[in-house]
Amino acid sequence: MIWCRFSVGGDTSFGVVEGERVRRADGVPWGAHAIGSATLPLAAVKLELPVVPNTFFCVGVNYRDHVERMAAKRGTVPSFPPRPDIGYRANNALIAHGENIVKPRDAGEQFQYEGELVAVFGKRCRNVSKEDALACVFGWTIGNDVSERTWQANDRTLWRAKNSDTFKPMGPWIVTDADLDAMTTTIRLNGAVAETFKTNNMIFDAPTYISEVSRYCTIEPGDVMWMGTDGVPSNMKPGDVCEIEISGIGVLRNRVVAA
Amino acid sequence: MIWCRFSVGGDTSFGVVEGERVRRADGVPWGAHAIGSATLPLAAVKLELPVVPNTFFCVGVNYRDHVERMAAKRGTVPSFPPRPDIGYRANNALIAHGENIVKPRDAGEQFQYEGELVAVFGKRCRNVSKEDALACVFGWTIGNDVSERTWQANDRTLWRAKNSDTFKPMGPWIVTDADLDAMTTTIRLNGAVAETFKTNNMIFDAPTYISEVSRYCTIEPGDVMWMGTDGVPSNMKPGDVCEIEISGIGVLRNRVVAA
Repeated sequence: MIWCRFSVGGDTSFGVVEGERVRRADGVPWGAHAIGSATLPLAAVKLELPVVPNTFFCVGVNYRDHVERMAAKRGTVPSFPPRPDIGYRANNALIAHGENIVKPRDAGEQFQYEGELVAVFGKRCRNVSKEDALACVFGWTIGNDVSERTWQANDRTLWRAKNSDTFKPMGPWIVTDADLDAMTTTIRLNGAVAETFKTNNMIFDAPTYISEVSRYCTIEPGDVMWMGTDGVPSNMKPGDVCEIEISGIGVLRNRVVAA
Repeated sequence: MIWCRFSVGGDTSFGVVEGERVRRADGVPWGAHAIGSATLPLAAVKLELPVVPNTFFCVGVNYRDHVERMAAKRGTVPSFPPRPDIGYRANNALIAHGENIVKPRDAGEQFQYEGELVAVFGKRCRNVSKEDALACVFGWTIGNDVSERTWQANDRTLWRAKNSDTFKPMGPWIVTDADLDAMTTTIRLNGAVAETFKTNNMIFDAPTYISEVSRYCTIEPGDVMWMGTDGVPSNMKPGDVCEIEISGIGVLRNRVVAA
């Protein structure tokens, strides 16, 4: 099942995507809801953020190849995380599929995408085992963890580097039935493939992260956990169109514009 | 004016505090609202979080004396932040005035309070000057940035150290008229004064932080910015009662219990 959030005629609601059409739903996908009988063409609505989280969890370093190649690029020794320490991103940075990534005036050349699998939670979870962790996930969407590398290297925190307005595209929708092991993430810049990797080839997989986070933090329905990226990202410049495709989910497409 | 959020008989709403009584309000303090005519005794209601933010901004290091004394304690050279880099905390950690801080089973002895001034925003702001920054603040409340120092020193991020459930008491209410320069923060552990400092004696003051953050990030009504702490905090253990008082705002009181 594919759930989206969309606007039409000034109203925003959740909806169920069926091919090229969407069926409006009252309520929330992971709670009480009623799915309507009428359908609208997807092309006639604006896709919104599939969810606005209460807490926005984000994994920082979670693919072996990414760690090794980024270290080689910097001329440093690769350092693998010894345990699944979660990080955070900020809601102000979220934008929907199709909206513009705005490159700030003072951002440098190393303005880069990071294609990520995103877990959207449907149940409150605290102290869940690895075995029970995926039962708390309502579905999966796609995130682009846009990053300004000079700020990332020099600021004391990641606030500007990763949380400036529009730096967190998420969407296009949430897919409830997903085979993580079968997924491939493909990142395209202006139509050309820039990176491709096995989505589930993580250092700590989703059940491990969810179980560990839930030992200390309650994860609420509607919260999201971004799972990190692989490879060595390229620079994006105004005018570029960045697409993150995860097989089985869809394509998150956003254009970069200058501030 | 003092705004709170409270529950009574299963309903939660905002309210205006008048001495020992509270007047229910429909709507939100920083938007359309109607203040009712009936009042309830404060003692008969449960104070809730004064606000649940969309983005939870938090200043990490913002008092000169705190930096110098923490460095001396660690035997390191004090390092002052060269610029106002903001950080974040997570909503799952928030608890209201009067609720219990739960010390996790595996937390160590260095389980400490940090008393902080909190700005609550009432207007959307982006690219505001220092001069206009305080006009975006609806009012002020108090935060306790509870921290587990072993995790803070050893984990890759601050997730467990500062964002475990119940680690972020905030309240008791929001005061709209405040003279920051006249404020004193006093922290009491079981009634004894543990620390006292001039609240506004910051390295980067609230207008500086708000203006700088707003260059990159849109701050929304209801967002909060915690402004950091001074001094060298003491350890708290189960059974302790921690009070953060800021003159002109009130007292945030929470008991520590064992998980």
